[in-house]
Amino acid sequence: MEFSSGLLSSAVEQIQRLPGIGKKSALRIALFLLKKDQTYTEYLSQAITAFRKEINYCSVCYNLCDEKICTICNDQKRDKEIICVVQHMTDVLSIENTPDYKGVYHVLGGIISPIQGIGPVNIRISELLDRIQDHIPKEIIFALPATIEGETTLNYISEQVRKVSLSVHISTVARGLPVGGELEYADQVTLSRSISERRQVTNTIK
Amino acid sequence: MEFSSGLLSSAVEQIQRLPGIGKKSALRIALFLLKKDQTYTEYLSQAITAFRKEINYCSVCYNLCDEKICTICNDQKRDKEIICVVQHMTDVLSIENTPDYKGVYHVLGGIISPIQGIGPVNIRISELLDRIQDHIPKEIIFALPATIEGETTLNYISEQVRKVSLSVHISTVARGLPVGGELEYADQVTLSRSISERRQVTNTIK
Repeated sequence: MEFSSGLLSSAVEQIQRLPGIGKKSALRIALFLLKKDQTYTEYLSQAITAFRKEINYCSVCYNLCDEKICTICNDQKRDKEIICVVQHMTDVLSIENTPDYKGVYHVLGGIISPIQGIGPVNIRISELLDRIQDHIPKEIIFALPATIEGETTLNYISEQVRKVSLSVHISTVARGLPVGGELEYADQVTLSRSISERRQVTNTIK
Repeated sequence: MEFSSGLLSSAVEQIQRLPGIGKKSALRIALFLLKKDQTYTEYLSQAITAFRKEINYCSVCYNLCDEKICTICNDQKRDKEIICVVQHMTDVLSIENTPDYKGVYHVLGGIISPIQGIGPVNIRISELLDRIQDHIPKEIIFALPATIEGETTLNYISEQVRKVSLSVHISTVARGLPVGGELEYADQVTLSRSISERRQVTNTIK
């Protein structure tokens, strides 16, 4: 596609470098900007430039934040004795969308993956160890992907945590059938895991 | 989804106003900007702001362009005697992607649609009539959508053109089976149209 306008062409070129946006979508976005009031394009530019320039990582949990310490770590109501270790800040968002968790987080920024050249030094493991050395929490919950890389990372970090403290309780999110999932549609590994990690049913007698 | 950062939150809010982008994609784009070098965000902002601010419509054909007259209208090799009337500038791009057409364009900016409140005065019909009054071309080709609105627009404009000149040849792009299309998959209207508008096959005898 060749454009009659250099301005349009360079706008489309920059927009289509964004993830999940091809040339046609980029053109559609550019023409949408044209239809909308000019102030919208200005707001958009300002918002993304300010975000890219001024965003910080929380110095405690490495979640994205505007200040030095994020709103979750600053919240007096959150239980600082429970730390949930996640891969990305999007995982924090997912867990925050559930109503139950009231502890704090630690964002690793990745998981150990030799294939992608990501070793223990490339993710924020030493930061986690420093953090728990300052104050040993009651529990560390690992909420990492249910993949080989996730399991490797879990095992590596929990070993390191054990060297710092033997008293801290280490747990991982349950693997099993998704809620609402039928047995016949579950994959073999999930099903076999859900059997090996079965829970005792305790009936309460009234 | 609530974000721990106001900067992230407002970036996502502005990005998700773009067409075809939901909250999750907007977040993905924002985090992508964070991973990329800061210069990319600056390039992107500059490109869209400059595009929105400085883009012009060609004073002849109303295609998008950087100068007063677009590169197609300025091109000495293009046949100014043939004007192709299209709905949007994206249609110009589509036709330019085919190798054959060497005439010029006229971009209406819409088609007559009473349901959407678009009448003949809302699209660039008078501009087309002024243009052909200045210089009557040999042919006007309508490349409008194969819908009722498209046909209405075609009929309305061709009547107006006839009032200006009886000599100009008026045509419309052929409707029929798409190239490579099987008869059994064609819809009824297309098939019946392809029969009523059948072409004579002329065998050349060697």
